[in-house]
Amino acid sequence: MGSLIFSKTLFSKTNDKGETMKYRYSEMTWPECNAAAKAGRVAVLPVATYEDHGYHLPIDVDVLLATEICDRAVARIPEEAVLIPAVTHGYSPHHMDFPGTITIAWDTFIKYVKDVCLSLAHHGFTRILIVNGHGSNTSPLDMSARLTVVETEGRVLCAAVNHWGVRPVRELGKTLRDSEFGGTSHACEYETSLYLALRPDLVEMDKAVDEKIPVPASFQTDLLAGKRADGATANLMPFWSSLTDSGVRGDATKATVEKGEAFLEAAIEGVIELVRELKGAEIRPRQDHH
Amino acid sequence: MGSLIFSKTLFSKTNDKGETMKYRYSEMTWPECNAAAKAGRVAVLPVATYEDHGYHLPIDVDVLLATEICDRAVARIPEEAVLIPAVTHGYSPHHMDFPGTITIAWDTFIKYVKDVCLSLAHHGFTRILIVNGHGSNTSPLDMSARLTVVETEGRVLCAAVNHWGVRPVRELGKTLRDSEFGGTSHACEYETSLYLALRPDLVEMDKAVDEKIPVPASFQTDLLAGKRADGATANLMPFWSSLTDSGVRGDATKATVEKGEAFLEAAIEGVIELVRELKGAEIRPRQDHH
Amino acid sequence: MGSLIFSKTLFSKTNDKGETMKYRYSEMTWPECNAAAKAGRVAVLPVATYEDHGYHLPIDVDVLLATEICDRAVARIPEEAVLIPAVTHGYSPHHMDFPGTITIAWDTFIKYVKDVCLSLAHHGFTRILIVNGHGSNTSPLDMSARLTVVETEGRVLCAAVNHWGVRPVRELGKTLRDSEFGGTSHACEYETSLYLALRPDLVEMDKAVDEKIPVPASFQTDLLAGKRADGATANLMPFWSSLTDSGVRGDATKATVEKGEAFLEAAIEGVIELVRELKGAEIRPRQDHH
Amino acid sequence: MGSLIFSKTLFSKTNDKGETMKYRYSEMTWPECNAAAKAGRVAVLPVATYEDHGYHLPIDVDVLLATEICDRAVARIPEEAVLIPAVTHGYSPHHMDFPGTITIAWDTFIKYVKDVCLSLAHHGFTRILIVNGHGSNTSPLDMSARLTVVETEGRVLCAAVNHWGVRPVRELGKTLRDSEFGGTSHACEYETSLYLALRPDLVEMDKAVDEKIPVPASFQTDLLAGKRADGATANLMPFWSSLTDSGVRGDATKATVEKGEAFLEAAIEGVIELVRELKGAEIRPRQDHH
Amino acid sequence: MGSLIFSKTLFSKTNDKGETMKYRYSEMTWPECNAAAKAGRVAVLPVATYEDHGYHLPIDVDVLLATEICDRAVARIPEEAVLIPAVTHGYSPHHMDFPGTITIAWDTFIKYVKDVCLSLAHHGFTRILIVNGHGSNTSPLDMSARLTVVETEGRVLCAAVNHWGVRPVRELGKTLRDSEFGGTSHACEYETSLYLALRPDLVEMDKAVDEKIPVPASFQTDLLAGKRADGATANLMPFWSSLTDSGVRGDATKATVEKGEAFLEAAIEGVIELVRELKGAEIRPRQDHH
Amino acid sequence: MGSLIFSKTLFSKTNDKGETMKYRYSEMTWPECNAAAKAGRVAVLPVATYEDHGYHLPIDVDVLLATEICDRAVARIPEEAVLIPAVTHGYSPHHMDFPGTITIAWDTFIKYVKDVCLSLAHHGFTRILIVNGHGSNTSPLDMSARLTVVETEGRVLCAAVNHWGVRPVRELGKTLRDSEFGGTSHACEYETSLYLALRPDLVEMDKAVDEKIPVPASFQTDLLAGKRADGATANLMPFWSSLTDSGVRGDATKATVEKGEAFLEAAIEGVIELVRELKGAEIRPRQDHH
Repeated sequence: MGSLIFSKTLFSKTNDKGETMKYRYSEMTWPECNAAAKAGRVAVLPVATYEDHGYHLPIDVDVLLATEICDRAVARIPEEAVLIPAVTHGYSPHHMDFPGTITIAWDTFIKYVKDVCLSLAHHGFTRILIVNGHGSNTSPLDMSARLTVVETEGRVLCAAVNHWGVRPVRELGKTLRDSEFGGTSHACEYETSLYLALRPDLVEMDKAVDEKIPVPASFQTDLLAGKRADGATANLMPFWSSLTDSGVRGDATKATVEKGEAFLEAAIEGVIELVRELKGAEIRPRQDHH
Repeated sequence: MGSLIFSKTLFSKTNDKGETMKYRYSEMTWPECNAAAKAGRVAVLPVATYEDHGYHLPIDVDVLLATEICDRAVARIPEEAVLIPAVTHGYSPHHMDFPGTITIAWDTFIKYVKDVCLSLAHHGFTRILIVNGHGSNTSPLDMSARLTVVETEGRVLCAAVNHWGVRPVRELGKTLRDSEFGGTSHACEYETSLYLALRPDLVEMDKAVDEKIPVPASFQTDLLAGKRADGATANLMPFWSSLTDSGVRGDATKATVEKGEAFLEAAIEGVIELVRELKGAEIRPRQDHH
Repeated sequence: MGSLIFSKTLFSKTNDKGETMKYRYSEMTWPECNAAAKAGRVAVLPVATYEDHGYHLPIDVDVLLATEICDRAVARIPEEAVLIPAVTHGYSPHHMDFPGTITIAWDTFIKYVKDVCLSLAHHGFTRILIVNGHGSNTSPLDMSARLTVVETEGRVLCAAVNHWGVRPVRELGKTLRDSEFGGTSHACEYETSLYLALRPDLVEMDKAVDEKIPVPASFQTDLLAGKRADGATANLMPFWSSLTDSGVRGDATKATVEKGEAFLEAAIEGVIELVRELKGAEIRPRQDHH
Repeated sequence: MGSLIFSKTLFSKTNDKGETMKYRYSEMTWPECNAAAKAGRVAVLPVATYEDHGYHLPIDVDVLLATEICDRAVARIPEEAVLIPAVTHGYSPHHMDFPGTITIAWDTFIKYVKDVCLSLAHHGFTRILIVNGHGSNTSPLDMSARLTVVETEGRVLCAAVNHWGVRPVRELGKTLRDSEFGGTSHACEYETSLYLALRPDLVEMDKAVDEKIPVPASFQTDLLAGKRADGATANLMPFWSSLTDSGVRGDATKATVEKGEAFLEAAIEGVIELVRELKGAEIRPRQDHH
Repeated sequence: MGSLIFSKTLFSKTNDKGETMKYRYSEMTWPECNAAAKAGRVAVLPVATYEDHGYHLPIDVDVLLATEICDRAVARIPEEAVLIPAVTHGYSPHHMDFPGTITIAWDTFIKYVKDVCLSLAHHGFTRILIVNGHGSNTSPLDMSARLTVVETEGRVLCAAVNHWGVRPVRELGKTLRDSEFGGTSHACEYETSLYLALRPDLVEMDKAVDEKIPVPASFQTDLLAGKRADGATANLMPFWSSLTDSGVRGDATKATVEKGEAFLEAAIEGVIELVRELKGAEIRPRQDHH
Repeated sequence: MGSLIFSKTLFSKTNDKGETMKYRYSEMTWPECNAAAKAGRVAVLPVATYEDHGYHLPIDVDVLLATEICDRAVARIPEEAVLIPAVTHGYSPHHMDFPGTITIAWDTFIKYVKDVCLSLAHHGFTRILIVNGHGSNTSPLDMSARLTVVETEGRVLCAAVNHWGVRPVRELGKTLRDSEFGGTSHACEYETSLYLALRPDLVEMDKAVDEKIPVPASFQTDLLAGKRADGATANLMPFWSSLTDSGVRGDATKATVEKGEAFLEAAIEGVIELVRELKGAEIRPRQDHH
């Protein structure tokens, strides 16, 4: 018996004509890929990284969350979207004091994701949504998305979003969380809850900690509340091992399966919402003012 | 009679020992630069770009604002900070349909700013604050700041902030503005007001427009209110000429000198606040978990 | 009900002390990653690409084969090896005339894989085996492996191999195949058989073709027999669409589940053999002859 | 009262039709930039660096000189030229033993300046003159200028010159200087005189020195007389701190305001002369000899 | 009397019309280069490196062999081919413990050779054969060749081959050699024999050694027999100084002039064979499947 | 009979102890390379390019001249210098309208030459002289030389010179030439004379022309007299095909063997002079002023 790391369920569904539809790009034949592009489906690309997430979680938290959210979102709207295979090794040099972290040089990472997007653009996709699961990928992915727009001369719309940044998650975050500001930063109430909802067998909740070593305002992060408690937007990221002992920043002990399922549903809805916004977006043509 | 584009006023002040203090790095001799680094003063680096800002403003809006805010802020606290000469050519490929725009390739720009910061680090500065005046520089400068931290192995704290993102400006923005969401995006109520406060002779208010062509939520930007009206954080930037005819997005007609002076004061206070936070920041040492 | 693309089976097994052992790096916590490196386990990294594989196979053939072979091989010897998460987007510019293909610029791809390896080296892994599933990745991965050796000053042994190049597969290929030279080039008897053994639900054998458009000797490839029929080793690769209409080169119609299972077993054994060779390899120290 | 580092004087003048003309690109609106390019005005770009200039001069000598010479030259001929905002951080790795020096990696610097020029070319400027104030920028700027020509397929003429290399300065140098060969190398009779003419308030002449540590012929430099006393043209540049204690090479004590004013006038005339030569230059079209 | 390192013999021959034909690109005028390209002659580019080759051979073994084989091959078929000036500094970082080795960074080397090929393509050559004399150049040159194909959109066929990999040499190797597997790896029976046939005055056979320090199968190389004794194709290259004391791997003592002359003739025939295959190769046009 | 493009003469000479000395690096064994570095011999590296040189000269003029001058110079002083194998493909994008030209991207070329120099530095050479034969290589080679100094932290002195720029050639140029300013620019009186002295069999003097199409002062070049007739030093280089029809700029008809022999001797003497200056140069240690 084999290990088969790709599941066989849900890889397709029946469209309104009674035909089976695949939604995973990887499982399509090349003519099916061609048809998906021609049909105007939005390409959804999960991106993440591997890094320490406390004593209680595996290093693949960012990967599992981004990938599962996208897979489930796209599975619900196969006529409208296609799931692109994830880029799972990202940008995380400041975590390298912790074993397990894999990091790619910033420019290599930006170009790698850009090349995935440009390949899709080459095949006719005109709407691409990058869904990110790792905070420090945010600026690099903004670059990848912008370069995709620029290098296609504006023919392709490419957007990047963090799954904790979509509207429904941000709204849910205002009420569902139990921790205070700083409680949902990394391997925290939010991420642990989601992981519990997806792979409870890999979570050791007895090792979960509440670690919130005080830091200056500029070093504060909170996924759900916005970057800083004071509302300013300064970016500053010291080495992670100077900010935490366990790898956690936030309160992982507040995590529950129930919260995870609610956040998961909100994230899925948020991705679907953005897919539809992108799909429907019409923008005016460029004008040459010279 | 000369043109002297560097003014002679305020280049120094008297410190508490009665000695004259220079605050502009460019005007110091090399032993003075050495002393400034040894004294633990924070290096403040303005960064911006040149690009279209409507019919009523010159292309140097981002440069003038970032530079003047920093110059005035540092001039008030010469014992605590040093003004580093600005990097004025930034990242703006999506504005190239408009004459005047100068844009630097993304990786060249990131490395250029990083090299300025690493030069300062080489000379002993351990606290660097990048103050940005151009929205599309945000992600590149986040990269430059992070690379400075990483390549100095964490010995240097380097932060990046947009002047409209500092706490006092964000707070003031809630009450002072007259335009609605979307009114302070580009060459807008906020930027025009600031320019009026600094160089009224170069503003042609009779050519100021209120241009807010409707766009999908993902394309919305508002400097003072945050990116999108719906609270999500997706990043997407089409070519500028597809979003505006004049170059303006927002309501420039709402700009006044008075607002400009108030925002200028808030921005100066915000920079000073961040300088002091950086200067006082002590972080725990890195730990090697291998 | 969820889509969970990561299976829950076989992610761990019991070692000789009766303890459960994880073999997938992605599922480990950071202290477990640390322990795996300290235990001297060999890091096994699958690499592949997405590209056209005829009308009868999905575009993820190279990914599925490389990943499953490695996953199963490592699952059998968790004390000796660790499965590193795959790099699945590779180098395939000459396939871009076919929809579905994703290609990464050569130098970006080489550096990306190198950075994964250097991250592992940073955490103490000293033996890394890259297992490749895509022919045109061969030279780039040779570069990645060599750069890993060079940049670690020889402290790390990093080897790269194609799964069809391991000893047991090459030996089996001499007897098991039914096609002649050129029959196992791409989406062919070999690859289709393996895919049938892994995901028969995704194979449409009625669309499988036997396509062997005659080409000069230098353009010939055969995975199992070696590059050229004449034994020379010239490398030349024109655009794929000039060599095939369907995307297939070789005889896909000769593929069977039985052959696939036999090749799969041979490939697994080959990977295990190489892991053990690498693990046992002791080399003399470097000498400085200056 | 503000610090306003950009002066308000001379930013425009009246052209022969009685209209006001701006000559600084930075102060133009985008339609004005467009008109300037269409009018065939020559783009004049000052480039320099920040580095030690002895005990008696600030680190911005190269910046102030290049920028002021260009500003004054262009102000005199606004119908013919436009002043582009300066690139002030240049290439000076060999000065990094001296505090204050800022250096940009060679290829980053070359590309940065090239991108400024290509942006101008994109907007229709066909004649660009780079005026350099820092010796070690010479080769990088030659590269930037050539790349501008090559990447525009020859549609743009881009030249680079050092301000001490223009004809009138070289001629004046034969008679006006009081020091012997080697006396005008760095922070010397020439540079100090010019700075005295521009910002006497920042010069501490009592700290000026005459430092000419003997070096082999290949290491000799003299701005006004040409590189070496023996007339050969070998390029060799050791670390600056091995050639001088104060940072000065040459005789700063010979500097006077009067010499500075004369050299300033000569440099201004030299820039104007080159602008006019570039503006009038017609070259034959390219021929394809294949 | 002069040193003239370029010989005067054989630089041309009489073609079938009685006209003198040059076969060395370097000795042609530009109109002759143009005519050579238009005539469809194949460009043959030798590439090698300088590195230690035992106590008995100079460091230029790879250069002399590749260059002489190509020169003699092309001299025999001037109507069909042109000898391009060699690229002699290659990729050999793992030999740097041995004095004499010159190594170029991998990406610089790949791009350098690619630029030579693209220059030839620009002038109309459509068939390029790279003939390599250094094992570790193999993957980089495969990249250079592929990039040439890709960047010319498939208009140019560019192949790369090692001289020991051409058909006649491989066949001869089965019978002519006296050493066992591993005997022809580096500075060995094969290379020494060839050098003896070309420059016996530079060979000190009394210093030739038989050095075959046992290594794991993956580290084994044999130029004539294929990489590994077990038939697998794993690539792994440790630092050379850990594999040999003298620089030799193999049995140099088995080398003779007679073997060298036979291998030389076989290599020349092999290059000619490949030139003709390339020249005659017609491939089908690309098809866009979108 | 073979083609042997490397001559056998003069590769060694007898030193003062009666031992034979090799002077060509390429012909040394690795222990001999080691001894040469330890003996403090200066590494002399010829660099050039291939490009059109009129109807009367082959494309290898720059290569033959630089290589022969260096070979003969080093052959005379083997105790003091070593001849490094030439880098013959250089930077010449503006000549690509002429068949035959080979050009390497600017940054690739700079890094390639730098890597040759750094390899030599790694082996202990501390004095390197680059002798250039191609005008447009001047700035790139200045960069390579400087980077060698910088990346070795000043332990290595690396200088670059053009053979027409050495003192004896410049002095001889004042009297020996018959053409006026502009007569010795490219494929001209100077280069043709030298080629006549070295390989008269390859020169077709009946095809030599006198071509001096008038150009603005900034475009003027004259190898022997300095760049411009007016003494200024502006750098500007349009595409070559816009400046000449034949490829020649200057008066090739004035060339004679006698002049060539005289210039050859002067160039050899100039190289020897620079080798000795470099070898004898002692510079003060660096000082850290922080």
